[in-house]
Amino acid sequence: MQLNAPLDMHLHLRDNEMLHNIAKASAETFAGALVMPNLVPPVSTKEEVVSYKKRIVDAIGNETFTPYMTLFFKPTYNRDFLEGVRDEIAAIKLYPAGITTNSEGGVSGFDAEELRPALEAMSDLGIPLCIHGETNGFVMDREAEFVSIYEKLAGAFPKLKIIMEHITTKESVAALDRYENLYATITVHHLLITLDDVAGGMLQPHLFCKPIAKRPEDREALLKVALEAHPKVMFGSDSAPHPKEAKEACGCAAGVFTAPIALQLLAELFENRGASLEKLQAFVSGNAQQIYGIKPLQKTVVLKKKPFRVPSSYSGVVPMFANEEIAYSLKEVIDGQPC
Amino acid sequence: MQLNAPLDMHLHLRDNEMLHNIAKASAETFAGALVMPNLVPPVSTKEEVVSYKKRIVDAIGNETFTPYMTLFFKPTYNRDFLEGVRDEIAAIKLYPAGITTNSEGGVSGFDAEELRPALEAMSDLGIPLCIHGETNGFVMDREAEFVSIYEKLAGAFPKLKIIMEHITTKESVAALDRYENLYATITVHHLLITLDDVAGGMLQPHLFCKPIAKRPEDREALLKVALEAHPKVMFGSDSAPHPKEAKEACGCAAGVFTAPIALQLLAELFENRGASLEKLQAFVSGNAQQIYGIKPLQKTVVLKKKPFRVPSSYSGVVPMFANEEIAYSLKEVIDGQPC
Repeated sequence: MQLNAPLDMHLHLRDNEMLHNIAKASAETFAGALVMPNLVPPVSTKEEVVSYKKRIVDAIGNETFTPYMTLFFKPTYNRDFLEGVRDEIAAIKLYPAGITTNSEGGVSGFDAEELRPALEAMSDLGIPLCIHGETNGFVMDREAEFVSIYEKLAGAFPKLKIIMEHITTKESVAALDRYENLYATITVHHLLITLDDVAGGMLQPHLFCKPIAKRPEDREALLKVALEAHPKVMFGSDSAPHPKEAKEACGCAAGVFTAPIALQLLAELFENRGASLEKLQAFVSGNAQQIYGIKPLQKTVVLKKKPFRVPSSYSGVVPMFANEEIAYSLKEVIDGQPC
Repeated sequence: MQLNAPLDMHLHLRDNEMLHNIAKASAETFAGALVMPNLVPPVSTKEEVVSYKKRIVDAIGNETFTPYMTLFFKPTYNRDFLEGVRDEIAAIKLYPAGITTNSEGGVSGFDAEELRPALEAMSDLGIPLCIHGETNGFVMDREAEFVSIYEKLAGAFPKLKIIMEHITTKESVAALDRYENLYATITVHHLLITLDDVAGGMLQPHLFCKPIAKRPEDREALLKVALEAHPKVMFGSDSAPHPKEAKEACGCAAGVFTAPIALQLLAELFENRGASLEKLQAFVSGNAQQIYGIKPLQKTVVLKKKPFRVPSSYSGVVPMFANEEIAYSLKEVIDGQPC
């Protein structure tokens, strides 16, 4: 099975030692990824974007992977600033304050008029807005409650591309078709698990993430649009590395680490569910190219149907399915020129 | 504040070293407790009940605490067997197979006719049936789905006292008043937390239990009947010790350890919610005396409103609210004669 120029449109690469340890896991099989800006402090100036991108490229050590950079949204961004940074970024990521890892400096209210200067400038400049859409409500309701905010923003800024990040509910899926300018990323783990896998048997900290995995009917709604490669959805792993000791602890950090096996898992899932390779190709690359208007590096990933035992850890980070067998292995990666 | 003869009508004491380490935590403040039989192998013969009771009494080392013993329900129990064991037990506990810690040998189907010989004999002999009521469905639905089984059994065996153990949902609360012979225990942790506390922020393995904490409206329904000391509900801590390393791990065991602080937490909760001491007394002792027809040992527990810092662990078991302050402290315990 060959996949061309796979893109991961939602990725956490962290910084420093962790960046050096895990960036290659994505660079090996993906042609590029949209890199999240929630460092400490968050990436929120042009200089920080440029510097972070350089650190990523240095960590990877070759040029077969494009980090598509993001800024951490602040309501104070003005047109001048955004014009100046436009060429360095692919999107701006908005976090509600305190909603996930390193999001303390995020947005507290969602008053469209207060956000208008920044969002209108983004709209004019063609900068997509990526949103982690959760309220601070009850954990199983947070995303569904946020849909009205997505809709308010989509209605107020009809030319602004708004990407509902890592959606986990049928309510978010339903919103996709109500507004032309709403798009979504979906992770591989939310296509595979529900809350049952996290907390239905023994508690599984390595499957704990934000948004938390939801109900079976939510997963079915996600699967439907992923498997048909709905043109407004794209793959974004939300792969988020934490050291083993931060996951297996009292107060476990949120995040599932899937980067090294994401394509293999998607290949297995699409096959098991009878979806075509063409749909998989659109889900992992074509749709994102259309939505973001990007031309990724040429890179052909060849997978073979041969069991692969997932390692117990990658540099101290426990991946999804650690020590378990998955159906597909990576055979080879053929790098080429920009396509 | 004085509480007379507090009873914990659902307690896990385990065996061997753990029993020796933690039994005194319950014996210190409770006059007695209904002891669950899910050892490995489960307690399912008269000899095992007698022997386990002796081990508990030995572990406590004095006679100020009554272990009310239970058998692990098997559909094969016949009238002769039950007559022979009647005087050694306060109840029989039914586990659906595989639903919680050490429940592998439990019941797989709930065919009333198949269960009739055992349940009719229990009904005739006045042995209450305690049930861990969860299906093997989606984790948030398991208890609500089980309500129809509670109702089927309550209808088929109208003289059998059926205790819905550690209820966590509004559906179970609603069932209480539909059948005269349905009763319930409620834990202190399910009165205090929801799934938000377990998985809404960082993941909290020490608050992970079965049944898992549910939604805010479920907790409100539990609070209503607990605070009014509804005559069909009684306190049962479901305090379940696991070593720290089994909780803070990949594949964390289910159970919250509250035994040493349960009464203090209830005192604080009832006060905060404006419920009277009389109601608390009924919830922690009077209702259970009525429902089970037991006369506990005299024991007066005096609590004072003085902050208490909960230890980080009790013999390697991390309690609820470890390292946090709670409002009430234990002042003294006055033991007396059987009342």
